[in-house]
Amino acid sequence: MRHGVILAGGGGTRLWPASRRARPKQFLSLGTGTQSLLAATAERLQPVCGDRLYVVTAEEQAALVQADLPALAPGHIISEPSARNTAPALGLAAVHLLHRDPDAIMAALPSDQHIAQGDEFRRITELAFAAAEEHEAVVTVGIVPTRPETGYGYLKLGSALVGELRGVDAFVEKPDAATAEHYLASYLARGDYLWNAGMFFVKARYLLDEIDTWMPETGAGLREIADALGTDAADAVCQRIYPTLPSLSIDYGIMEKTSPVLTLAGDFGWNDVGSWTALADYLAADADDNIKVGKAITYDARNNIIVADEGKLIAMAGVSNMVVVQSGDATLILPRDRAQDVRNLVESLRAASLQRFL
Amino acid sequence: MRHGVILAGGGGTRLWPASRRARPKQFLSLGTGTQSLLAATAERLQPVCGDRLYVVTAEEQAALVQADLPALAPGHIISEPSARNTAPALGLAAVHLLHRDPDAIMAALPSDQHIAQGDEFRRITELAFAAAEEHEAVVTVGIVPTRPETGYGYLKLGSALVGELRGVDAFVEKPDAATAEHYLASYLARGDYLWNAGMFFVKARYLLDEIDTWMPETGAGLREIADALGTDAADAVCQRIYPTLPSLSIDYGIMEKTSPVLTLAGDFGWNDVGSWTALADYLAADADDNIKVGKAITYDARNNIIVADEGKLIAMAGVSNMVVVQSGDATLILPRDRAQDVRNLVESLRAASLQRFL
Repeated sequence: MRHGVILAGGGGTRLWPASRRARPKQFLSLGTGTQSLLAATAERLQPVCGDRLYVVTAEEQAALVQADLPALAPGHIISEPSARNTAPALGLAAVHLLHRDPDAIMAALPSDQHIAQGDEFRRITELAFAAAEEHEAVVTVGIVPTRPETGYGYLKLGSALVGELRGVDAFVEKPDAATAEHYLASYLARGDYLWNAGMFFVKARYLLDEIDTWMPETGAGLREIADALGTDAADAVCQRIYPTLPSLSIDYGIMEKTSPVLTLAGDFGWNDVGSWTALADYLAADADDNIKVGKAITYDARNNIIVADEGKLIAMAGVSNMVVVQSGDATLILPRDRAQDVRNLVESLRAASLQRFL
Repeated sequence: MRHGVILAGGGGTRLWPASRRARPKQFLSLGTGTQSLLAATAERLQPVCGDRLYVVTAEEQAALVQADLPALAPGHIISEPSARNTAPALGLAAVHLLHRDPDAIMAALPSDQHIAQGDEFRRITELAFAAAEEHEAVVTVGIVPTRPETGYGYLKLGSALVGELRGVDAFVEKPDAATAEHYLASYLARGDYLWNAGMFFVKARYLLDEIDTWMPETGAGLREIADALGTDAADAVCQRIYPTLPSLSIDYGIMEKTSPVLTLAGDFGWNDVGSWTALADYLAADADDNIKVGKAITYDARNNIIVADEGKLIAMAGVSNMVVVQSGDATLILPRDRAQDVRNLVESLRAASLQRFL
């Protein structure tokens, strides 16, 4: 059976002050509507997976997930006792799926991405599930690159297989600017580089076997957790074992080593909302090129990204190319081309003992 | 007896979003402490007038005044049934004072100014009261000019009288830039121009006589209101008469016509907080020349004026020479040299049916 696994354990400060420790990015709608990114991800998967949808999250976020996804079936929130990165998280999900369905095939998807074209996403998802059913392999969906992005890893594609399916020769890490230009040019000429968006389709059994092969300590721990599932000790065992697993991403731990890896190219308006400026990629601007989420009044102000809570107002005059975000008790103001400075401000807040605003 | 009359009926949009229809500027502290400008004005007058302090205000602001000045004696809030500008307001105050004290001398002062040097203010106030006691004349306190300001009227001084007292030859209206430069140079050379700050000291009886002379319709109306004071009809008569009085400022109605006018030069850190940039005149800046009221974190940001409500935070990076004000449900952002654009934004709010933010 096909199962969806949404990874929703992340934090991150790049979308502060909307994203907070107590309410990270995946629980926000970020201008995409009234729905959170997580809820939109779940809704996209529903036609494919029905109620066989799981969310892996940090224990302290489990209540937020439940509130955000009230239709989630009981027991379908898989809590990590501590954050151990994506390899243990997906392994833990595989263990839980196998306990219910020995033939489980899982789609593992991030919770905090925006996808504009849901129909195309579902078409590719169906193909990816079918490929994962047919092949003893990890199937990934890479994203068609649209700019020389240095913030993502890339998939270097190999030979074409049947239909849209291709082999992956290598997972390559975040490139420098020149290399990113080369990747983009190479994609445009030969279609051989895609962005790694962290979407994986794989038989749960196969994933655990690969973890046994490439991360044997993690594999052993996961099997111990698996053996306890369905017993009174399940929770205690997970609490004891999971925090001891090496913290490693699925990319480093498995994807850079396992073979074969297959891929499908996804071209469905994907956006990882990696900073406030990303809103300009998927939201419409007004006549003065201002992106407005919530209520904003502008006078002689152009090319700004302006975000306000419902019921609040931002009024700007004579100011251009800025990011202004009012969220709860904090307001952020910086130039669009310095959106990365959010991190410096967050560091300043820590240094000034103002963590309560994080 | 000496009485203080504080005019607190104003509205104004130049300090939006802190100043609102429901809570205008005089009820705000604007970085001067926990006290409102009105409460600070009352406190400054207390050593001079004791509890003989009155506040003239709009009916709808009477409750705000009472809350802001809990020590105000009962009956010392004089409500205007409708706004008729300063000449009728001061006439109404004179009527009320005379009802209690036929020899009343009144100091009429705006409620929304900041004065840094309270001791010097009180010294000048004592001199002004004494001059108003001695002379059948209006005594005003003019402000020593520090820049070629085009936003104020000026007093053109005449001959020196005894001590610091001088005659006023003319009330002159807001000058253009060249004239303002001339006034400033003339003050620096000969001390003969002062800013008109709307501070008047006068016998209540003499003020009403001058109103009779120069504004006879208003004088007649005020005497009708005076005759009803102390009767059951007092309120009804005021409600009926006052709104019919011509709306006129004391400057246009009386000061430009009456003679003699005497003046004392005030040099006590006066500021009318006429725009957000005025905060830089009386508040200390941090090492990066940022003025901060409330909690603000700045990174690579200079020469900004940043105002936030208690409990709120403004975080800025890579932004200089800006005004940022978060107050209640609204946030204002504009360059310091365009602080006057607040009015355009307020107009935009009206046009967009967003008056609820005003």
